[in-house]
Amino acid sequence: MPMHAVQPPNLPTPEDVAVVVGATGGIGSALLEELGGDSRYGRVLGLSRTPPPPTGGRIVPGYIDVTDEASIEAAAAQAKALGTVRLVIVASGMLHDNAARPERTWAELRPEVLIKLFAVNAIGPALVARHFLPLLPRTGRSVFASISARVGSIEDNRLGGWHSYRASKAALNMLLKTFSIELKRRNPSAICVGLHPGTVDTALSKPFQGSVAPGKLFSPDQSAAHLLRVIDQLTPADSGAVFAWDGSRIPA
Amino acid sequence: MPMHAVQPPNLPTPEDVAVVVGATGGIGSALLEELGGDSRYGRVLGLSRTPPPPTGGRIVPGYIDVTDEASIEAAAAQAKALGTVRLVIVASGMLHDNAARPERTWAELRPEVLIKLFAVNAIGPALVARHFLPLLPRTGRSVFASISARVGSIEDNRLGGWHSYRASKAALNMLLKTFSIELKRRNPSAICVGLHPGTVDTALSKPFQGSVAPGKLFSPDQSAAHLLRVIDQLTPADSGAVFAWDGSRIPA
Repeated sequence: MPMHAVQPPNLPTPEDVAVVVGATGGIGSALLEELGGDSRYGRVLGLSRTPPPPTGGRIVPGYIDVTDEASIEAAAAQAKALGTVRLVIVASGMLHDNAARPERTWAELRPEVLIKLFAVNAIGPALVARHFLPLLPRTGRSVFASISARVGSIEDNRLGGWHSYRASKAALNMLLKTFSIELKRRNPSAICVGLHPGTVDTALSKPFQGSVAPGKLFSPDQSAAHLLRVIDQLTPADSGAVFAWDGSRIPA
Repeated sequence: MPMHAVQPPNLPTPEDVAVVVGATGGIGSALLEELGGDSRYGRVLGLSRTPPPPTGGRIVPGYIDVTDEASIEAAAAQAKALGTVRLVIVASGMLHDNAARPERTWAELRPEVLIKLFAVNAIGPALVARHFLPLLPRTGRSVFASISARVGSIEDNRLGGWHSYRASKAALNMLLKTFSIELKRRNPSAICVGLHPGTVDTALSKPFQGSVAPGKLFSPDQSAAHLLRVIDQLTPADSGAVFAWDGSRIPA
């Protein structure tokens, strides 16, 4: 059988839609740009609290605030109207703000920081999943990926510190695992994972770049390319786990 | 050297204090009673939102609300005044209330339930740790243990569901791991762990006891005896991990 005679099954078509949540952040905007140049997606919905004006082409801007469920629901309706959602990447997340650097000791724990990081890093992505997973088609390959972090691995935690961030990412990883089980029942070809982008030169990592090994501080563009390569190579057996930028699996 | 000539090092003395947080719950009240009969502790502080009246003997009641940091700080001061704190067990926790049973599907996710369970099951114990870990002595064996749950294991999650509870316990397990690292630097003999009590015949598990294997639904007294036996057998190498009622280690 000549190879060109049959279209491979499940290949994305121009009716397919990719969605980036947190599309104006460092990694998110790079993902959006990269996906906007990917002919496999007819539309790329870039969701943000501060959506840029429409620029034409494949990219469609939209509003989302992951701490406001009504906005997530509205964004899901916007995505649904664009076509068949085959890829969702949640790139929103928070390590610190000006008010609170990551904890170095238990003495620095503040309940309001814990609450905020759970809201942004765990509950937000969970609500995005709750409203976007039902949009994934019942057949064919699709991927729901949320940016997690190696420091969200309990097993890998040897240094301590960063209590709130670590706990929020561990919670996220559990939620992704839980979603993956239900998703598999709906469609065995659908995949739900967490992704560790490495240390990326963004506002989030700015105060912590001093300890990064040479060549391991990635630009947002490099990071987006890494993550999209990992996403392309995922198989259904990978669903529920967390993968680093180089494709290696990170333990729970 | 005759064995009676030297007091073994680090043996708890009657000046030592044990603390139970959540001391009027199913498991907590059984732990309190059991510890009240244990001559190794001169005082056993039972902390609860609804402390019982003082009954004399070793048991001292006190007030705590793990969602109110000021009450945690005051309870820590109460514990400190009683003697040397060698054992803290956090037995507070919430699986569901009348308003919300555990989720069976992502469609049942509610942000207010996620927020509540993170507050009670993760942030609460973290704040207890933040104020009680500094009370543990700098030398000799001491244990900080928080009731966790097997369903808080990401690796062990094969059934899905119970999103909020699972995520809050995974976050707790990460916090305990993080605390264990700092605790070890203060005192290499101090131990910080999570404990899975099994399914115990309490209000928490009431709606879910149907699926429990025969002989595996424990009374609170049985559970308290199991957990105290596990605590007695812990070594510093166990710090940071989660252990089941039978002493087996639960993966992250």
